[in-house]
Amino acid sequence: MSTQEKVVERLGICVGGGPAPGINGVIAAVTIEAINNGLEVVGFIEGFKYLMAKDYTKFKTLKISDVSRIHFQGGSVLRTSRSNPTKNPVHLQNCVDVLSELNVKYLVTIGGDDTAFSSMSIAKAADNKIKVCHVPKTIDNDLPLPNGIPTFGYQTAREVGTNILRNLSEDAKTAGRFFIVVAMGRNAGHLALGIGKSAGAQLTIIPEEFHGSKITFNRVCDIIESTVIKRLAKGKDHGVVVLAEGLLEHMDQEDLITMFGQENVKLDPHGHILLAELDFGKQIRDELRSRASKRGISVNFTEKNLGYELRCAPPNAYDREYTRDLGYGAVSYLLSGRSGALISFQGTSMVPMDFEDIKDPKTGKARVRMVDCDSEGFKVAVKYMIRLSAKDFNNPQKLQILAQAGKTTEEEFKKQFEYLVHSEAH
Amino acid sequence: MSTQEKVVERLGICVGGGPAPGINGVIAAVTIEAINNGLEVVGFIEGFKYLMAKDYTKFKTLKISDVSRIHFQGGSVLRTSRSNPTKNPVHLQNCVDVLSELNVKYLVTIGGDDTAFSSMSIAKAADNKIKVCHVPKTIDNDLPLPNGIPTFGYQTAREVGTNILRNLSEDAKTAGRFFIVVAMGRNAGHLALGIGKSAGAQLTIIPEEFHGSKITFNRVCDIIESTVIKRLAKGKDHGVVVLAEGLLEHMDQEDLITMFGQENVKLDPHGHILLAELDFGKQIRDELRSRASKRGISVNFTEKNLGYELRCAPPNAYDREYTRDLGYGAVSYLLSGRSGALISFQGTSMVPMDFEDIKDPKTGKARVRMVDCDSEGFKVAVKYMIRLSAKDFNNPQKLQILAQAGKTTEEEFKKQFEYLVHSEAH
Amino acid sequence: MSTQEKVVERLGICVGGGPAPGINGVIAAVTIEAINNGLEVVGFIEGFKYLMAKDYTKFKTLKISDVSRIHFQGGSVLRTSRSNPTKNPVHLQNCVDVLSELNVKYLVTIGGDDTAFSSMSIAKAADNKIKVCHVPKTIDNDLPLPNGIPTFGYQTAREVGTNILRNLSEDAKTAGRFFIVVAMGRNAGHLALGIGKSAGAQLTIIPEEFHGSKITFNRVCDIIESTVIKRLAKGKDHGVVVLAEGLLEHMDQEDLITMFGQENVKLDPHGHILLAELDFGKQIRDELRSRASKRGISVNFTEKNLGYELRCAPPNAYDREYTRDLGYGAVSYLLSGRSGALISFQGTSMVPMDFEDIKDPKTGKARVRMVDCDSEGFKVAVKYMIRLSAKDFNNPQKLQILAQAGKTTEEEFKKQFEYLVHSEAH
Amino acid sequence: MSTQEKVVERLGICVGGGPAPGINGVIAAVTIEAINNGLEVVGFIEGFKYLMAKDYTKFKTLKISDVSRIHFQGGSVLRTSRSNPTKNPVHLQNCVDVLSELNVKYLVTIGGDDTAFSSMSIAKAADNKIKVCHVPKTIDNDLPLPNGIPTFGYQTAREVGTNILRNLSEDAKTAGRFFIVVAMGRNAGHLALGIGKSAGAQLTIIPEEFHGSKITFNRVCDIIESTVIKRLAKGKDHGVVVLAEGLLEHMDQEDLITMFGQENVKLDPHGHILLAELDFGKQIRDELRSRASKRGISVNFTEKNLGYELRCAPPNAYDREYTRDLGYGAVSYLLSGRSGALISFQGTSMVPMDFEDIKDPKTGKARVRMVDCDSEGFKVAVKYMIRLSAKDFNNPQKLQILAQAGKTTEEEFKKQFEYLVHSEAH
Repeated sequence: MSTQEKVVERLGICVGGGPAPGINGVIAAVTIEAINNGLEVVGFIEGFKYLMAKDYTKFKTLKISDVSRIHFQGGSVLRTSRSNPTKNPVHLQNCVDVLSELNVKYLVTIGGDDTAFSSMSIAKAADNKIKVCHVPKTIDNDLPLPNGIPTFGYQTAREVGTNILRNLSEDAKTAGRFFIVVAMGRNAGHLALGIGKSAGAQLTIIPEEFHGSKITFNRVCDIIESTVIKRLAKGKDHGVVVLAEGLLEHMDQEDLITMFGQENVKLDPHGHILLAELDFGKQIRDELRSRASKRGISVNFTEKNLGYELRCAPPNAYDREYTRDLGYGAVSYLLSGRSGALISFQGTSMVPMDFEDIKDPKTGKARVRMVDCDSEGFKVAVKYMIRLSAKDFNNPQKLQILAQAGKTTEEEFKKQFEYLVHSEAH
Repeated sequence: MSTQEKVVERLGICVGGGPAPGINGVIAAVTIEAINNGLEVVGFIEGFKYLMAKDYTKFKTLKISDVSRIHFQGGSVLRTSRSNPTKNPVHLQNCVDVLSELNVKYLVTIGGDDTAFSSMSIAKAADNKIKVCHVPKTIDNDLPLPNGIPTFGYQTAREVGTNILRNLSEDAKTAGRFFIVVAMGRNAGHLALGIGKSAGAQLTIIPEEFHGSKITFNRVCDIIESTVIKRLAKGKDHGVVVLAEGLLEHMDQEDLITMFGQENVKLDPHGHILLAELDFGKQIRDELRSRASKRGISVNFTEKNLGYELRCAPPNAYDREYTRDLGYGAVSYLLSGRSGALISFQGTSMVPMDFEDIKDPKTGKARVRMVDCDSEGFKVAVKYMIRLSAKDFNNPQKLQILAQAGKTTEEEFKKQFEYLVHSEAH
Repeated sequence: MSTQEKVVERLGICVGGGPAPGINGVIAAVTIEAINNGLEVVGFIEGFKYLMAKDYTKFKTLKISDVSRIHFQGGSVLRTSRSNPTKNPVHLQNCVDVLSELNVKYLVTIGGDDTAFSSMSIAKAADNKIKVCHVPKTIDNDLPLPNGIPTFGYQTAREVGTNILRNLSEDAKTAGRFFIVVAMGRNAGHLALGIGKSAGAQLTIIPEEFHGSKITFNRVCDIIESTVIKRLAKGKDHGVVVLAEGLLEHMDQEDLITMFGQENVKLDPHGHILLAELDFGKQIRDELRSRASKRGISVNFTEKNLGYELRCAPPNAYDREYTRDLGYGAVSYLLSGRSGALISFQGTSMVPMDFEDIKDPKTGKARVRMVDCDSEGFKVAVKYMIRLSAKDFNNPQKLQILAQAGKTTEEEFKKQFEYLVHSEAH
Repeated sequence: MSTQEKVVERLGICVGGGPAPGINGVIAAVTIEAINNGLEVVGFIEGFKYLMAKDYTKFKTLKISDVSRIHFQGGSVLRTSRSNPTKNPVHLQNCVDVLSELNVKYLVTIGGDDTAFSSMSIAKAADNKIKVCHVPKTIDNDLPLPNGIPTFGYQTAREVGTNILRNLSEDAKTAGRFFIVVAMGRNAGHLALGIGKSAGAQLTIIPEEFHGSKITFNRVCDIIESTVIKRLAKGKDHGVVVLAEGLLEHMDQEDLITMFGQENVKLDPHGHILLAELDFGKQIRDELRSRASKRGISVNFTEKNLGYELRCAPPNAYDREYTRDLGYGAVSYLLSGRSGALISFQGTSMVPMDFEDIKDPKTGKARVRMVDCDSEGFKVAVKYMIRLSAKDFNNPQKLQILAQAGKTTEEEFKKQFEYLVHSEAH
């Protein structure tokens, strides 16, 4: 590096965590605005990975022409990684050393919780000589933003998911089949619900509807089975069911072991079950097939996982505009002399949020925004699902039809399913 | 009609005004929720057209199976019309008569301002025996909803428009050309700005940026020409310029006559210029070609109108969810015994708005929500445009380069363009 | 049915087999052309299912207004089923009886092989009083049409699949990951190759490339592993691998049992392995993970199945035009007094094909068109894949780099992989 | 340029003419295959523009990483221009000089007729020391390829156009309106017909249907007007009409002058009318409005131009595969030692075509492939249009209904329209 180069102040960009549509839009907006303000922009490859290893070479100097059209493109031109410099003080110091050596005065991080925390930690370790801000990103839509404000990437992921669901829904109807679709979303049910609702799925099950009570494999299957029977009772042999992957997170280990078999349940070093290794959809499908077979009803079940095809989809117009706002907001925030915030856009206003304010004291991480089951938005979603309701049990004629569709007696039907309407989403 | 049929209470649906993506979603959601609540649903064809004429036959009885998948489809299965029953008391009474005869106790209207007013007028003329509510609809996004809440149809229209702009932008770059794109939007610049911003157009001009001062043809051309010269100064012979059609609305008649020629300016019965007949894009294109030719610079200009291809596009996931919320909200509102509101969804809450509260006392119509030029959202949009700035005039070197690109002197350049940076969007 | 109704000659439509994009286009084109020629059109629900059961009621009388816009829509408005009336003479006679009673003089079937055979059998059983023709349909593209003529549905399915692959490819690159994508296609590799080639996947493996020699699980894994190592040798830790589902069909049972475990390999009544129950992608993924782990290289593998989301996608323009041609062709063929053919469109000409001419004498079914591995189209596909070539072994430097990337010795590398370049696609 | 650089043989790429989806796919495939064969690849910016000016600097050295994902992208990364080096021997020599100096031994040109001719001319001027081949490109689909083989770019342009038409068609139906859509296509009607047919437009008019007889403005309007009346007679107040822009090419100058006014008809230096300056759609719209007004029928007409939004759309899977084939074919052809051909892919085989063989002796340019009006493909298209037929005149009842719909007498109706059914597409 020549002396000359060091004279210009630099702004660095780091991307961490899983991909979400719109990362390139943020990178583009940050780069253009920073250059227009006289800074040089360096994009670090694969997040903190090489910074941690004190590698001074793994970056690209970004010009406006490099980024001027990438807002239409999914993925991240800087790639991403889950490398976390906060686990080891040496790693953190390495980051600070490289950034200082490269004359990076401003750092914009794009990522989830861990990346935000790394960002703040670097600022601290650098005695605030490096000003940082963080642009939060997740297709899970589960950051503590105000009601109605999505995280960037969510609208695109939902759009792509819902179009796939439309095709599956036509297939279900054409070929006589129920699809069990498991949608990504580690904790909250936003993505599953957003996809199911805008596609008009017959049923979507998210962890929030259980209001914190224990979620069991059996209960999830009861809900689905009752929806299937209610469809059959109306002469419909088809439908689409969406399950939030996060349901697994809320099941207890014993239940999971019963469900998947001891040999398939693997633990991470902390003793947590590795959920990604469990094929939730297949397990549900097998159970439903087995139940249908026992009942003597003829129904086809097919499972489908939805997630990886959404994360790097080309961002839609919503996310293209949104990420431009966020990227501009990040630079504008930093150049105003401030540091340490998460950037959000609420309505048409940029709102920096203090990491402390959104932190969950229990976890030390950002609070997870769960779907609000008391909201009208959720209520509407449920209203258009096919689920059992109190009426189905109170009206003897309805109950009879349902029991017949399930090839069982009214008593048995009540015994198996009535508990669902007392406790669930309504 | 049999006696039996009259016993069941009915809910009617009427669609008025221009199309917007998502009308079918509202129709579907209203129909399903109304039927689930024991009502029969009748959809009137072409808005108030036949009701006004006391035609008892132009409706469809809607079943759930008729509407269960139409939320994926653009247009309106009930069509639409601009027929307005409020201009003539006989027409209004005819509507009331037909609705009463058909036992319609609830009326959901979907449309713009005029349709909302008709809706309210019918309730009044029926002594509130018919309860009404209105679901506002416009791709123009110009209803007085809270900051950040779009009208339904806008997100889809913007998405489709921005994808066309992406193609034009590639064409501009590949073939060396400036596109002058005129985007629909009668009053406000939301759609033009939304398209231009999320596509990354080099320039978008909307009426709001003039802050109420007179908009002249010449000034609009000056802005575009200066952007073109600034691009040329950077070695770029191409770009995309988006103009809000609504600019025409804010120009004065003399200017329009000079611009289009007396023979092309036609007046409606009220003496207002028929703007739709004026080919704004072509006029601008011709002026820019003429200016370039006078300067001796070689630039290609092509015009393009954007609008009709957006209004009936298949609704995207955002609008599919949104219209489900709105349709449910309308029925829920009516069944709670209320009447007379416009239904909105803000965040995840249904908010009925009183027509009186959003009325502009001057026009008697709903207030028009203009783009807020003081918002950060607008500021961000402008920041990524190519426009002259004060720096371009203060820095002699920059000024020289610009003047050279425009094949003129610094003095002439200043004389023609400097006024723009003192008065405009910044 | 009134006497009147029987006077009008009718044309019936039956859809059998799995869905493919464009079925509705055929239904629409057949209906419109038949009605324009004075016929009445009846669409039978779920193929032969109810005809076989002598149910006279399960049909829709189709009007032009019912079908005039359905060519934009995926799925089948008449649904489909796999019910086969040729297995039981009573079923066949029932079909003939119902068709005769309904005055169906012409029958258009849309489907695969079995449906075609059923169609011909009905004509025969009805002593050719019912004239039949068949419109072949499969996303697998494996009917014996001339070189370069796809089956309808293929172009749409490929388009949707390739767009999903584009997203996966961005994800692979952004997050550092190899996707193992298993694409539908019972016998031939057209769909997998078409998707892989137009998306630019790093590797696509289809059964045809083995030229009839035995396909083993181990060999498939060797090919993939060597591609992964070759990518790593070029500094690339990511890529997309497409596998034709049909590879499984060509593996021998013992291999499958070793691969999936005896308990997971289920047989149908004829003793054939139920391939659909085997999770091919997951098995490959697990083997590759295990191999990587043994080598001590750090690579991420994720599997993805592609198929159900393609079969009912909205048909693209290609298939919309194509199915209009086919539907017209079917009616035109029948009204010319002929019977018994499969309708094809080759270039811009309608070509009826005699079922006998395309029959494979061994199977009694239509010959399966496999990918021609000697064609330039296939050669081009292979040229742009990342596979080992003779050069990699002949050039010691290259070999060394590869061995190092695989954390092994040149000898071991040759021992494991050299056989691939002698026998495979080149 | 260092001595070293000159040692490596180079392959150059030049893009001329208007854009078409897939250019980047060809560039990518050529580049990868050439580099894999040991060549260096240089991409010249804006076709022959700078070569002609003896500018040695306007090229990019293309690496595999520059092009490996651009096949998904519309436009041309090398841009394009219409600069033609064959008009001036000095320009031609300049091209040869620069290419020789840069050690370009192989030249792949991508473009239309003029570019092909330039390519051949350069080879000749270089005494065949530069081997050339040409990849023909046009969204117009009018090159003399075998029946059923499209030119690259056509399938994508058609797809995008047909989706816009779908939206317009919904709008027409929803709002009660006829759209007059003018589709690009200088000579032949392929694009207009392909769009109209796959979208299900009510009418498409292409120059070929007139079988070489004179096309008049009046006759075109008669055809459209009669379709409109026939729709009205069926109770339909809406529809979509597609006109091939090329109709203008086949009208005579006097007619054009009458139609557009002397002042709007501009001539090029050769005395040919500048058709691009004439707003065909608007003129037709105005005439139809005037006719409807005279008849006293109430119909809405709106015009729309379709073209620029298609040329740089992201290529669909069909064109992505196709351009990979073509690009590979070009390199493979050149490396086999041959020169001077146009590369085509027919079915799955690469077929080099000698420019001489496809040359029209009259024009010295490639023969124009017109739509074959005797083909079944065209016949099918016409069958699904709404046009007058002999039956409409022979059947007195039909004639009466039509005349009434047109608010005229049977005699007048016959007088105006009967000639159409004797002479036109049938």
